Amino acid sequence: MAGDPILLAAVSLLSACQQIYFGFCVGRARLKYKIAPPAVSGSLEFERIFRAHQNSLEAYSIFLITLWTSGWYFNQVLAACLGLVYIYARHKYFWGYAETAEGRVTGFKLSLGVLALLIGLAVLGLASRFLDEYLDLHVAKKLRHPF
Amino acid sequence: MAGDPILLAAVSLLSACQQIYFGFCVGRARLKYKIAPPAVSGSLEFERIFRAHQNSLEAYSIFLITLWTSGWYFNQVLAACLGLVYIYARHKYFWGYAETAEGRVTGFKLSLGVLALLIGLAVLGLASRFLDEYLDLHVAKKLRHPF
Amino acid sequence: MAGDPILLAAVSLLSACQQIYFGFCVGRARLKYKIAPPAVSGSLEFERIFRAHQNSLEAYSIFLITLWTSGWYFNQVLAACLGLVYIYARHKYFWGYAETAEGRVTGFKLSLGVLALLIGLAVLGLASRFLDEYLDLHVAKKLRHPF
Repeated sequence: MAGDPILLAAVSLLSACQQIYFGFCVGRARLKYKIAPPAVSGSLEFERIFRAHQNSLEAYSIFLITLWTSGWYFNQVLAACLGLVYIYARHKYFWGYAETAEGRVTGFKLSLGVLALLIGLAVLGLASRFLDEYLDLHVAKKLRHPF
Repeated sequence: MAGDPILLAAVSLLSACQQIYFGFCVGRARLKYKIAPPAVSGSLEFERIFRAHQNSLEAYSIFLITLWTSGWYFNQVLAACLGLVYIYARHKYFWGYAETAEGRVTGFKLSLGVLALLIGLAVLGLASRFLDEYLDLHVAKKLRHPF
Repeated sequence: MAGDPILLAAVSLLSACQQIYFGFCVGRARLKYKIAPPAVSGSLEFERIFRAHQNSLEAYSIFLITLWTSGWYFNQVLAACLGLVYIYARHKYFWGYAETAEGRVTGFKLSLGVLALLIGLAVLGLASRFLDEYLDLHVAKKLRHPF
């Protein structure tokens, strides 16, 4: 990518704010269900919210890496849009999990699908850059601007 | 930012070393309180140190994202200084939490304040870049170099 | 670094896929040992796999930061090769830990050694860049291209 990664930065910042918000929800749940730190168990409701937060954090670095590599090597606008869908999927996941353990499934599958798409785009972008660089094949341009 | 993000890289590396150091402290606490892996509970002292480490890791990706977006789009030196304050806040948080659960509060509030500041600067920087790019308003220059 | 960080991006993406794979293994272990979410304990076999995944995630942000700073400021090819060794070390760690708690040691030590090397290279690269910039000493060039 030649330009400014401003959309990727904006989506990353938005997702960081979402993670902070999830963290606040866990803190509020600590008060509501009376789970004093450092305990992380004792109430099933709290445990679900706690695990929902943990799982979102587990996936967060992976999301950032796939967002930036696909945005940088394939297409920034497409990656940023998928990033927004991912943030929505995590929202659904978190509140679904907070209600019931089964409630997490829809959001989880959607977030996994977005990750798979981002990885696919990143692999495509990286592969075409490799071909450009080492074999002088300009596959990237044709894929990115097919018309 | 046109220049080299060397200060952001240096602060990121320093904070990575801090996280590794916290990890070592957890390992040492495992030996001291005789908590054999994979267990993560059994002694309240160990649990506090373990949670202090976990909480620092939970916030780590968020810190990196806000550090880099504010440093890149607003001002590198200011972001790097705030990054150093954040590292100090995490130090206070970790050792405060290791002593008592209440001891974590000061460091936690400071680290949260720094994150809020970094997010504010990043939003300001990104917003002004958007205005530059799409509306041709050069708000950024005036904010970054007011004199 | 003047060029394209394509090798660093490729190694980062590969390691992200490894983390996703570890996540799937934890999900499979949930089914095998009948640990319904949000529980994370109840079977020692599951707890080992769960902690192996957690520990890999704990180190993941740290690995990314050291990979990119050493690759950017010292040498991309060297950093990317060390990154591949790290991915192999994490593979050994995960499956060693899944079998026995002692089985994690070899992979853990190897991954720690790679992290230490990456940090060393990053510090060297950053220090020489500082000297270049502020003292006009071109240490970096001699270290990077000694022949």
